[in-house]
Amino acid sequence: MAFSKVALVCVALLLLVKLCTCQYEPNWKSIDSRPLPVWFDQAKFGIFIHWGVFSVPSFGSEWFWWYWQKQKAKPYVDFMQKNYPPEFKYQDFASMFTAEFFDAKEWTDILASSGAKYIVLTTKHHEGFTMWGSKNSWNWNSVDVGPKRDIVAEVAGALRANSDLRLGLYHSLFEWFNPLFEQDAANVFSTNYFPTTKTLPELYEIINKYKPELLWSDGDGDAPDKYWNSTGFLAWLYNDSPVRETVVTNDRWGYGSICNHGGYYTCSDRFQPGHLMKHKWENCFSIDKYSWGYRRNAPLKDYFNIEQLVATLVETVSCGGNLLLNIGPTHDGRISPIFEERLRQMGQWLGVNGEAIYNSTAWRAQNDSATPGVWYTAKPQDKAVYAMFLDWPQSGYIVLNEPVGSKGVTQVVLLGHKPLDWELVEPRGLKVILPDLSYSQMPCQWAWTLRLIGTT
Amino acid sequence: MAFSKVALVCVALLLLVKLCTCQYEPNWKSIDSRPLPVWFDQAKFGIFIHWGVFSVPSFGSEWFWWYWQKQKAKPYVDFMQKNYPPEFKYQDFASMFTAEFFDAKEWTDILASSGAKYIVLTTKHHEGFTMWGSKNSWNWNSVDVGPKRDIVAEVAGALRANSDLRLGLYHSLFEWFNPLFEQDAANVFSTNYFPTTKTLPELYEIINKYKPELLWSDGDGDAPDKYWNSTGFLAWLYNDSPVRETVVTNDRWGYGSICNHGGYYTCSDRFQPGHLMKHKWENCFSIDKYSWGYRRNAPLKDYFNIEQLVATLVETVSCGGNLLLNIGPTHDGRISPIFEERLRQMGQWLGVNGEAIYNSTAWRAQNDSATPGVWYTAKPQDKAVYAMFLDWPQSGYIVLNEPVGSKGVTQVVLLGHKPLDWELVEPRGLKVILPDLSYSQMPCQWAWTLRLIGTT
Amino acid sequence: MAFSKVALVCVALLLLVKLCTCQYEPNWKSIDSRPLPVWFDQAKFGIFIHWGVFSVPSFGSEWFWWYWQKQKAKPYVDFMQKNYPPEFKYQDFASMFTAEFFDAKEWTDILASSGAKYIVLTTKHHEGFTMWGSKNSWNWNSVDVGPKRDIVAEVAGALRANSDLRLGLYHSLFEWFNPLFEQDAANVFSTNYFPTTKTLPELYEIINKYKPELLWSDGDGDAPDKYWNSTGFLAWLYNDSPVRETVVTNDRWGYGSICNHGGYYTCSDRFQPGHLMKHKWENCFSIDKYSWGYRRNAPLKDYFNIEQLVATLVETVSCGGNLLLNIGPTHDGRISPIFEERLRQMGQWLGVNGEAIYNSTAWRAQNDSATPGVWYTAKPQDKAVYAMFLDWPQSGYIVLNEPVGSKGVTQVVLLGHKPLDWELVEPRGLKVILPDLSYSQMPCQWAWTLRLIGTT
Amino acid sequence: MAFSKVALVCVALLLLVKLCTCQYEPNWKSIDSRPLPVWFDQAKFGIFIHWGVFSVPSFGSEWFWWYWQKQKAKPYVDFMQKNYPPEFKYQDFASMFTAEFFDAKEWTDILASSGAKYIVLTTKHHEGFTMWGSKNSWNWNSVDVGPKRDIVAEVAGALRANSDLRLGLYHSLFEWFNPLFEQDAANVFSTNYFPTTKTLPELYEIINKYKPELLWSDGDGDAPDKYWNSTGFLAWLYNDSPVRETVVTNDRWGYGSICNHGGYYTCSDRFQPGHLMKHKWENCFSIDKYSWGYRRNAPLKDYFNIEQLVATLVETVSCGGNLLLNIGPTHDGRISPIFEERLRQMGQWLGVNGEAIYNSTAWRAQNDSATPGVWYTAKPQDKAVYAMFLDWPQSGYIVLNEPVGSKGVTQVVLLGHKPLDWELVEPRGLKVILPDLSYSQMPCQWAWTLRLIGTT
Repeated sequence: MAFSKVALVCVALLLLVKLCTCQYEPNWKSIDSRPLPVWFDQAKFGIFIHWGVFSVPSFGSEWFWWYWQKQKAKPYVDFMQKNYPPEFKYQDFASMFTAEFFDAKEWTDILASSGAKYIVLTTKHHEGFTMWGSKNSWNWNSVDVGPKRDIVAEVAGALRANSDLRLGLYHSLFEWFNPLFEQDAANVFSTNYFPTTKTLPELYEIINKYKPELLWSDGDGDAPDKYWNSTGFLAWLYNDSPVRETVVTNDRWGYGSICNHGGYYTCSDRFQPGHLMKHKWENCFSIDKYSWGYRRNAPLKDYFNIEQLVATLVETVSCGGNLLLNIGPTHDGRISPIFEERLRQMGQWLGVNGEAIYNSTAWRAQNDSATPGVWYTAKPQDKAVYAMFLDWPQSGYIVLNEPVGSKGVTQVVLLGHKPLDWELVEPRGLKVILPDLSYSQMPCQWAWTLRLIGTT
Repeated sequence: MAFSKVALVCVALLLLVKLCTCQYEPNWKSIDSRPLPVWFDQAKFGIFIHWGVFSVPSFGSEWFWWYWQKQKAKPYVDFMQKNYPPEFKYQDFASMFTAEFFDAKEWTDILASSGAKYIVLTTKHHEGFTMWGSKNSWNWNSVDVGPKRDIVAEVAGALRANSDLRLGLYHSLFEWFNPLFEQDAANVFSTNYFPTTKTLPELYEIINKYKPELLWSDGDGDAPDKYWNSTGFLAWLYNDSPVRETVVTNDRWGYGSICNHGGYYTCSDRFQPGHLMKHKWENCFSIDKYSWGYRRNAPLKDYFNIEQLVATLVETVSCGGNLLLNIGPTHDGRISPIFEERLRQMGQWLGVNGEAIYNSTAWRAQNDSATPGVWYTAKPQDKAVYAMFLDWPQSGYIVLNEPVGSKGVTQVVLLGHKPLDWELVEPRGLKVILPDLSYSQMPCQWAWTLRLIGTT
Repeated sequence: MAFSKVALVCVALLLLVKLCTCQYEPNWKSIDSRPLPVWFDQAKFGIFIHWGVFSVPSFGSEWFWWYWQKQKAKPYVDFMQKNYPPEFKYQDFASMFTAEFFDAKEWTDILASSGAKYIVLTTKHHEGFTMWGSKNSWNWNSVDVGPKRDIVAEVAGALRANSDLRLGLYHSLFEWFNPLFEQDAANVFSTNYFPTTKTLPELYEIINKYKPELLWSDGDGDAPDKYWNSTGFLAWLYNDSPVRETVVTNDRWGYGSICNHGGYYTCSDRFQPGHLMKHKWENCFSIDKYSWGYRRNAPLKDYFNIEQLVATLVETVSCGGNLLLNIGPTHDGRISPIFEERLRQMGQWLGVNGEAIYNSTAWRAQNDSATPGVWYTAKPQDKAVYAMFLDWPQSGYIVLNEPVGSKGVTQVVLLGHKPLDWELVEPRGLKVILPDLSYSQMPCQWAWTLRLIGTT
Repeated sequence: MAFSKVALVCVALLLLVKLCTCQYEPNWKSIDSRPLPVWFDQAKFGIFIHWGVFSVPSFGSEWFWWYWQKQKAKPYVDFMQKNYPPEFKYQDFASMFTAEFFDAKEWTDILASSGAKYIVLTTKHHEGFTMWGSKNSWNWNSVDVGPKRDIVAEVAGALRANSDLRLGLYHSLFEWFNPLFEQDAANVFSTNYFPTTKTLPELYEIINKYKPELLWSDGDGDAPDKYWNSTGFLAWLYNDSPVRETVVTNDRWGYGSICNHGGYYTCSDRFQPGHLMKHKWENCFSIDKYSWGYRRNAPLKDYFNIEQLVATLVETVSCGGNLLLNIGPTHDGRISPIFEERLRQMGQWLGVNGEAIYNSTAWRAQNDSATPGVWYTAKPQDKAVYAMFLDWPQSGYIVLNEPVGSKGVTQVVLLGHKPLDWELVEPRGLKVILPDLSYSQMPCQWAWTLRLIGTT
């Protein structure tokens, strides 16, 4: 070994030691320098669960309280006037949050059937109602009122006992109508009564108590991260918390941090850039087109169908993102059959095509330049490129312009089926001959995958 | 014109007059002699709707009250003990029957989308709660308590204004816990306080008020038709009621009448004889495997899937029956998306294959002796025989043993596609060559139909 | 014994036999000829109890439903709009009629403490809600909904086990909103669906089941007694019912019968003729000045004070009437302390002065012509006249103009104290010297009684 | 004036200046040195009002939550099991705290009619529910849930607009089940999360917002005053608060402070020493013998009668105390008639005898050594001594052993009547001849007062 090599190894070792003992500092530069734990990018697919007091009216949106009381939006105002006494307040819904059919084990079975690798559960939405017995939210939490159960604990316990799903927790920094937040806001965030007595104690508590591997922050309330002491908290999370090794967070940590700082990027709801992003990102995407919380009166057409969901997963993963697919349980604790159906269908599809999704990376091209609806992923370690196509062509063949094949080397397999014939096309690319498969012979529905070995 | 012809015409005219002026008599012989109005056999497919106070607990079954209070069945007793105060009674559910999202026009759109030709709505189940403001059921009806709306009127009005669906009404003769019925029962039905003050006034009222074209009677309570004065009522219905020309009834009119007397036969729930019946019959069949009323906690696997539903329709119609497919709306008035999906899927299938269903008759053979899962119908007027097959064969052809084809005469068409090649097979039958259709070229899913012209 | 005497005895015996075997006929002449059982006139004082669904809103009046829905009276409409959802109906109050503190034995103790000799309990007011499990009022009675108890049975049982109070039952013939009554009314009472299926079966049932000694009929709904078949029912009540010997009824049996036919007369609520009536009568009088049912928001000044109640008893009895003093229990089954106080105060007063009330008769004069506030009763069997005076004169004596006293014969005693001196006054009457009694020496408060023996 | 005198005056002036500008220090020695504002001792009589979520069950005691959940006392456990669903929690009562009949002006009229000079309203009992919209008690206060009104503001406003009553506010330091308090307690009060985020902010808020002239502290939770920072708060209250001039407090400011430190002493509930106390004290005394909060099922005998209440006032004032008489309004906002009656009766009595109560001081003797039931007060400025006697003697006279009268000088007047004759008795004292007053001539009932002028 030459001296220079020895020197290099030394430097590398030193860096490693530095890494192992490093302490993140409470500033974005240091926080942002932390490598994202690898599990997250490998997982690709998670399930988002919006559950809270808003699941009781289950009308319009999980932003029900806001639209009704702050915006005085007509559909909400009318709904309340028609169905409730004049003095009824949002808080009165809490006692109707009964959760009598909530069974975390049943949930886990459904969630796992989807092929997802992690879940993200709302521990507290902007309404401020905590889904565990927070001592900083006395009488406005799921143990004191409504379900009278520690929802977070039940979900965490059942998940770990019955599945390999990782636990993620959603947490809203601000609370629409918390008077301490309103007070701070009125003081232009020069005071911080709210984060010190509510947000931060609760954040520390859920990390210590439930040890989530993903913390999905949301709702900065137009306040800067300094107000929230976000970097201080994240430094603790990364340095000292019980989940410091594996925990992943997102980018919603204060005004301006979204798509800029923190862990992976979420950028916006239903974020779908359509091209590869340098920074790891996630597309949170609700099956209900108009709401994250359950809406009792949503007709079938308001739910995305399975073709759309599979297409979204395919495009998202091709562009380097994870898909966080959202469902909204009912006030009495059920995952409604239409959601269950969509999740199980996702699982069916992934049962055949998961090889192209899990542990994959983005390829050099994201979609094909010749054939629309073809999206690529790759597994360099396996020298494999995957071409997922959303429409089964009536022509009987499919032209892929991006991969460069070579006769006698390149192999093409339809996942769930068998190797296929293919031809080179000019100036470059492959023409893959699809098999004549009757309806019942198809390996799967909704989208299909070609595994290409030996292309460049 | 010869004398004999003149005489024949005279006799015919006399018969016609006799027919026009005939009066059915209040006995089974006369009642049973009435020809079934033709619309019913032509319709083939209807939607059953079970809605009532039982939709509030929406637990276990629409027989909730009975299982809980009479049978003391453990799941029901436990459910009540866990979730309600000790003194809670079934009647207390009535005020929670809110129906705030009930919109009969929306229902009609969903019902019509299924391809059904009629509906049957519960106007009163065994609980005795009437879904209109019956004056014989004061304070135990949907106008006085709960929805505070005339549900039957709203459904009837919306149906007629927005669809060609015919209105059918379900009505239970007996009521589990009505004390007047209990009194009559204790008197071994030698008294009839109950039918004279409740059942019969209500039956007359719903006929006169809502003019249904189908009256679905149920629940004889082990009492003979004489107790219910069924033949008396039916004589009025057939002779004098406003719907005497078109109304259809079933066979549940008193102990012993089921599968024996009345209009068409229902015989039993989910009745599926598997062979041709001489008498017109109907298969009432709930999409929920275990209940007719909505069950909040039913998981996806408790709903029949669309393949099973299409297969049931096909077999039922082939054997001369109608399918009455049941859904259970929620306490707040919605048809849940999973039901909506199943109904719309039925409509999609019928959009392609309806030709083989509506207005068809049973053929000489019901199913094929060579190939399982092939069911026949026929339209003699069109010289057409329809072979519906539930599995798309991987072989690329299908052998039909029952039809006798002849070269150059017989034509075979895949509905939604085009004519197909076929060959004679020995000793008899046809081998039909199916087209190579990719997934996206299939005219439909779940089952397919061959129209055979020129077979015998 | 002379012949004439023997003849007389024979005639008397024959009359007696006739009396014993007489059958009242269903016409007023015969019904009205029945002598009033003697216990009623001797009792003088009863307690009226208005309890029902109206005790839940307990606002305005027991006519709540009527004022709100029929008259649209503003206070009621406003009260409902302010406190209940828009679709709330009167029937929804039924489930809030909880009666959790109802203890018939405790009631009996309070009722008995008042010195009353009978009670009259509402078994069904104009709302139609029966306070027992009537099979003709299914799901609109206290066993099926609300208390889920047979209120009438509990009161009757406790009364008989723990007191000498006689049981009276109030029953309303008509029901404001019963659709069968409305139908008959629309037919100008030419049909009688309502009495035959509701009123009469229930009347027979409460007599047979609870054997009351007083039946307080009310609410003719402007229908004639013929419609109600009142004389037919009363003939049965007097001839064949289990209480035929002792039962007493009032005069509210159909349009025009009040103050005219039946048993004793009630004439109008709070009836107080101010003079002697030939026919036995009763003054029903509510402690609450404005309502018979409980009113939650009644301030103290809306309750008659004890001086007024004692004065009313005194005047009523002097004029030959009975006082039926009304209380309204709460929705949760309590007799509120203010009612309890008034009742116990009545009992205190009667403890000293009952001798002048119970078993007394009206005297030849009802009140004194010289001194206002002096009312007379008498006991001819004891040769006693009682002068009750409502104000203790500051002069130290009281002048009675009506009694004719005679020196050495007439004795005057202050009840609860001792004999008093008196003097004759010209042209007639007595001047009674009252003792100097300090506050604590008074035998009672509110009114006092002089027993006069040996006057004419 | 001699130099020394000048010097003395100077020193006195300096001290005065010092006093005027003095700042109380946060220690008991300094706090205790503050003179009690004079209005309090002059007032003598106040009304205590216990209102809160406990008024909803209104069963057993305002300590309902504690007895039920902590002590598992059988009557409470049984009551809940019998009447509520299994999962019902105390917090669920909050939404039933409707207060629909609450009218602070009506309350004020009733409170003022009692003759009281101040009231004390529970702003927060040990349950922690604040009767104003505390931002430190989000969703557990009367503005967010239940009444949805600022109760404290409404009472304060009506009181000031319609009466001369002074406002006092009750406030509990600890909260039985507040998890932050429980955490501090588990830390043996070495942490103070609870007082800093709940108790103290709320204390400051109610003083600044409602400017009460009396602050009735309670509930130290066995924690020392240091934990509560009581002296710190009181220093602010006395030095800098908007009510620093007139505010009065009591002695319940931490473990060991009761009957020892703070403002006036309360020592214990229903404290009645029976002799003169050096330090100003108050007897808080509930009209309900067993509860401070309303008890729905309290029978009449559980309420003290007016004789007992007047006697308590008389004895309390004679011994130098104030009487704080307690009532418990209902969940719907009413002062029940039995309480209203007691309060108005107190007012009637004080209308005649108030001269001996208000602005009086304790005399050298508290009660008479010869005649039981005689209690003294005095007004030195008027040279008057008042002898209040609880029983009107049957003898016609009353002997007072304590006052030393002198012929021709001493005058005796029965309040509400006129001067009385009296005689000297040996060895000392007066024999006062009471007038012969009939029942209707009495100036008042229940107790009477003699004003003695010119005694020693």
